[in-house]
Amino acid sequence: MPIHGIIPPVATPLLNDHEIDVEGLERLIDHLMEGGVHGLFLLGTTGEGTSLSYELRTRFIKKVCRLVNKRVPVLAGITDTVFENSLRMASEYQEAGADMLVVAPPYYNPLSQSEMQHYLDDLAPRLPLPFFLYNIPSHTKIHLTTDTVLHARDLGAVGIKDSSGDINHILSLIETFKDAADFAVLSGTEIHISQVLQNGGHGAVPGGANLFPRLYVDFYTAIVNGEYEKIEFIQSVIFKINQTLYRFGDFPSGIILGIKSALEVLNICSSYAVHPLRQFDDKTREEIKKLVLELQETIEKYS
Amino acid sequence: MPIHGIIPPVATPLLNDHEIDVEGLERLIDHLMEGGVHGLFLLGTTGEGTSLSYELRTRFIKKVCRLVNKRVPVLAGITDTVFENSLRMASEYQEAGADMLVVAPPYYNPLSQSEMQHYLDDLAPRLPLPFFLYNIPSHTKIHLTTDTVLHARDLGAVGIKDSSGDINHILSLIETFKDAADFAVLSGTEIHISQVLQNGGHGAVPGGANLFPRLYVDFYTAIVNGEYEKIEFIQSVIFKINQTLYRFGDFPSGIILGIKSALEVLNICSSYAVHPLRQFDDKTREEIKKLVLELQETIEKYS
Amino acid sequence: MPIHGIIPPVATPLLNDHEIDVEGLERLIDHLMEGGVHGLFLLGTTGEGTSLSYELRTRFIKKVCRLVNKRVPVLAGITDTVFENSLRMASEYQEAGADMLVVAPPYYNPLSQSEMQHYLDDLAPRLPLPFFLYNIPSHTKIHLTTDTVLHARDLGAVGIKDSSGDINHILSLIETFKDAADFAVLSGTEIHISQVLQNGGHGAVPGGANLFPRLYVDFYTAIVNGEYEKIEFIQSVIFKINQTLYRFGDFPSGIILGIKSALEVLNICSSYAVHPLRQFDDKTREEIKKLVLELQETIEKYS
Amino acid sequence: MPIHGIIPPVATPLLNDHEIDVEGLERLIDHLMEGGVHGLFLLGTTGEGTSLSYELRTRFIKKVCRLVNKRVPVLAGITDTVFENSLRMASEYQEAGADMLVVAPPYYNPLSQSEMQHYLDDLAPRLPLPFFLYNIPSHTKIHLTTDTVLHARDLGAVGIKDSSGDINHILSLIETFKDAADFAVLSGTEIHISQVLQNGGHGAVPGGANLFPRLYVDFYTAIVNGEYEKIEFIQSVIFKINQTLYRFGDFPSGIILGIKSALEVLNICSSYAVHPLRQFDDKTREEIKKLVLELQETIEKYS
Repeated sequence: MPIHGIIPPVATPLLNDHEIDVEGLERLIDHLMEGGVHGLFLLGTTGEGTSLSYELRTRFIKKVCRLVNKRVPVLAGITDTVFENSLRMASEYQEAGADMLVVAPPYYNPLSQSEMQHYLDDLAPRLPLPFFLYNIPSHTKIHLTTDTVLHARDLGAVGIKDSSGDINHILSLIETFKDAADFAVLSGTEIHISQVLQNGGHGAVPGGANLFPRLYVDFYTAIVNGEYEKIEFIQSVIFKINQTLYRFGDFPSGIILGIKSALEVLNICSSYAVHPLRQFDDKTREEIKKLVLELQETIEKYS
Repeated sequence: MPIHGIIPPVATPLLNDHEIDVEGLERLIDHLMEGGVHGLFLLGTTGEGTSLSYELRTRFIKKVCRLVNKRVPVLAGITDTVFENSLRMASEYQEAGADMLVVAPPYYNPLSQSEMQHYLDDLAPRLPLPFFLYNIPSHTKIHLTTDTVLHARDLGAVGIKDSSGDINHILSLIETFKDAADFAVLSGTEIHISQVLQNGGHGAVPGGANLFPRLYVDFYTAIVNGEYEKIEFIQSVIFKINQTLYRFGDFPSGIILGIKSALEVLNICSSYAVHPLRQFDDKTREEIKKLVLELQETIEKYS
Repeated sequence: MPIHGIIPPVATPLLNDHEIDVEGLERLIDHLMEGGVHGLFLLGTTGEGTSLSYELRTRFIKKVCRLVNKRVPVLAGITDTVFENSLRMASEYQEAGADMLVVAPPYYNPLSQSEMQHYLDDLAPRLPLPFFLYNIPSHTKIHLTTDTVLHARDLGAVGIKDSSGDINHILSLIETFKDAADFAVLSGTEIHISQVLQNGGHGAVPGGANLFPRLYVDFYTAIVNGEYEKIEFIQSVIFKINQTLYRFGDFPSGIILGIKSALEVLNICSSYAVHPLRQFDDKTREEIKKLVLELQETIEKYS
Repeated sequence: MPIHGIIPPVATPLLNDHEIDVEGLERLIDHLMEGGVHGLFLLGTTGEGTSLSYELRTRFIKKVCRLVNKRVPVLAGITDTVFENSLRMASEYQEAGADMLVVAPPYYNPLSQSEMQHYLDDLAPRLPLPFFLYNIPSHTKIHLTTDTVLHARDLGAVGIKDSSGDINHILSLIETFKDAADFAVLSGTEIHISQVLQNGGHGAVPGGANLFPRLYVDFYTAIVNGEYEKIEFIQSVIFKINQTLYRFGDFPSGIILGIKSALEVLNICSSYAVHPLRQFDDKTREEIKKLVLELQETIEKYS
């Protein structure tokens, strides 16, 4: 069975641009493992991977792999605009203990599908670990087509994380790969989790699982087991998180900033966001505090 | 008077992902200097800056600065998704001999205008050289507003290169900065050069000037002097270049690939394009050969 | 309780641009009423309303109202680029027996939200019947904001049909109007029906209900009653319809053409589509035949 | 020689939704004819054609044709979402004295290129007068490709008015039709007039010519004759009009509202705009008054 379940895109706890919030990170990993998550995705969009120095990224992977100690698979993002940087990260992350790599399109030059396929032709054979493809057109300016995903699979990809927000596209991918026993389709869009899983998808990579890992794992289990009332309740909470926590101010990366502020409210780690992002101001963090307490109460009542 | 005239976005001659085509580079710089260009912009979009290893980038800047030997100002792009990488490049490029830096928005996370302004607040005071702002929403997903450009100027920016393709926007910028004696508005869009210059803009950064530097310099001079027949003729050639050479196949970066192939045809340097781009195939390069010969003939007849 | 349930956007059976397929229409209305639908929406996008002559539109409304004979409410679209045409249709449709009107933004000039609000200020007081707002930015080029919907409600709107495809937006609307006992939020997007209903929405306007009205009505009932296995099964069928029947060829209005061809396969009515659309060719209609038979079999097995 | 020169998209002077401002219209047509325009385009986007009752439209065409009395060709827009309405308008406008018809794509259902071509297949043979194609994707949601324009020409189209704002596209059209002696390429975008004419285009349809017809006609003549200083001056005025008069407030149709307000300031006609638009408020019209006086002064000084 391919990788499946809830694989949070782990936030990167930071004291500043250069220093990991080490204690915060330990609490965060404990929190996620206790929540029962099925894997961890490090240094993705939520993890602010592309904004961190390479040295810090490798330190982070090492630290997390040590903390996780093989209890669940660790996926690590290696996308870069420089081809050889991706290869170097791949090799360093393997040594650091990562289990799989995640490859999004290079994100400066807009690429055609054929250019992306050629890129994978050159990259895939040189990767020391299995890799996931990562579709996130809002950031990379290319919406990977089914043909490109098929091409990646021929080159050895073990799955795709689709964060296009395009439900029809992800349902098409599930249909295309339904007989591919070793290829996982993961939803990067939280509000589509139940649709994706109920139609044959394998899992999800929801940012909110940093905050409430048990909730998202219960959601996954409830869907697998057909516990419909539970599905309905958790879905309503997840919608609420999406409608409120991810939408403070007018920030394209509001989801990352919201999660980081909420992690601070939960006493897990610092809300510092690395350049070019900037953590929310005090007033917003105060509002987030109220919201998170409400969410906690709602969740606890139910359990 | 601020920087002005024709400042080509210099292509980066390469043998492969790791090696500069040194002889090609020497020929290219000779070609540009003989063409009378007013400055050089290195490691921009046309220069494939974000795709090159940092080490190669610094070597490239050093090499070019030595070749140019202060005859014209050298601008160097330092944009990166990692804040401290930009600062390190700034410092290395200063040492290497660059005269000015060019700052586009970090290009993974889409940014709001206020986030971009905060980013400049933190970056600008730490830059060791004067800097240009660089607006290229097709690649960075943010169209820098007049307010953001004004903010950059307050922080010391000495000009903007606008590659938005939005003629109304660049005309607004010219109007906004018309009394700012030390702030240059440069057109990054070739087909708008005459409109920009005739309405008070200071110069242009046309990719085609890699190929025919004298043509573009003559265009600038003709516009400054009001030599209208010359303007009309050169404009028609530049349109032809834009309509043909930059449009082979269906490649979002067709302009870069077209320029590199044409440089090879002109026996200036290799047409190799670094990952994730890929030089044109033989058939296309053969077509480009014919086209470039035609263009050369047209240009020579006139002169 | 406001209008709720499954309100199909009724296809308009035609022999040609000028003649209603009267027998087909009778069969279609019988089919829908036997399927248990809760209302009918005439002359919307699926009904090709804006492409029909005014005279034919009024004849169509009259005919349907006579056939329905007040068993369920009939909604009729009156949107037009000419203000007084909308008023005239409103008056004629009232006389013809319609119960409610549906108002989308005029669709030639792109409008700002404030212009749309002013438009409603002038239109709403002159309407002889209660009205629904209709949000369909793919066709009208304006995505009606919550403020505009609130404004419409202040002017007497009894609900909104949202066909934006933007699940976050429709969930926000539900939240906004959750205490408005007389205001209905209807999903115009089929794949969002369960999410909309489970989160407090009142109903849906699914094109596919022209073909399988009982299936969609069962879906509604199952969601209201929490019959989760049924929900899951029907959802999978609806997804299949959306992924296949609505996607033949590369036609922006493929959903309308697919429904019309399928109505023909089901021996309900002609597949003729009025200009500027054009019914599918024979080959495609043959493929649709196979598909519809498969769908029928799947549905019958379950029931 | 095909139609050429300055063909203003004539504003429609109105007292209210139902009544033409007859005296205003007479003044406007006098003003345009005295300005030396080469033709008139009635009931286009600037003429608010799609918002007027059919009866008023025909009255308007009649009135204008009587006033013009064959001194210049009159083009009339017949686009509609209802096929037979377009045919009826075509016939009525011919009787009323129009010389050519203008056909944009039907504007409710988004169309594919092939659907637009089929539409023309059915429409063109039934038109009683020569017709222009009209490309305005901002309003019709389809950017007519070169193939579609070629198809229209095969069906008898005598030209295209391109209002896409896509300079590369219109230059491609000019190239495609350069040997078609009887096919005119007209720029619907004011800021591209000189580029279009200098590269072989035949004319322009500039909204600003309602206000300053002589200025735009002089621009055309100056370009044809190579009077470059004049070109440069007038271009700067036209840019100013575009940068200021067309940009009050945040209205997608600001250009129409600006022109109508300016016509009032010039004592030509009422500034009333038909639903769904709405004339500017008093404050804005006061600002426009100042601006128009400035523009007049600038223009007069030069002449």
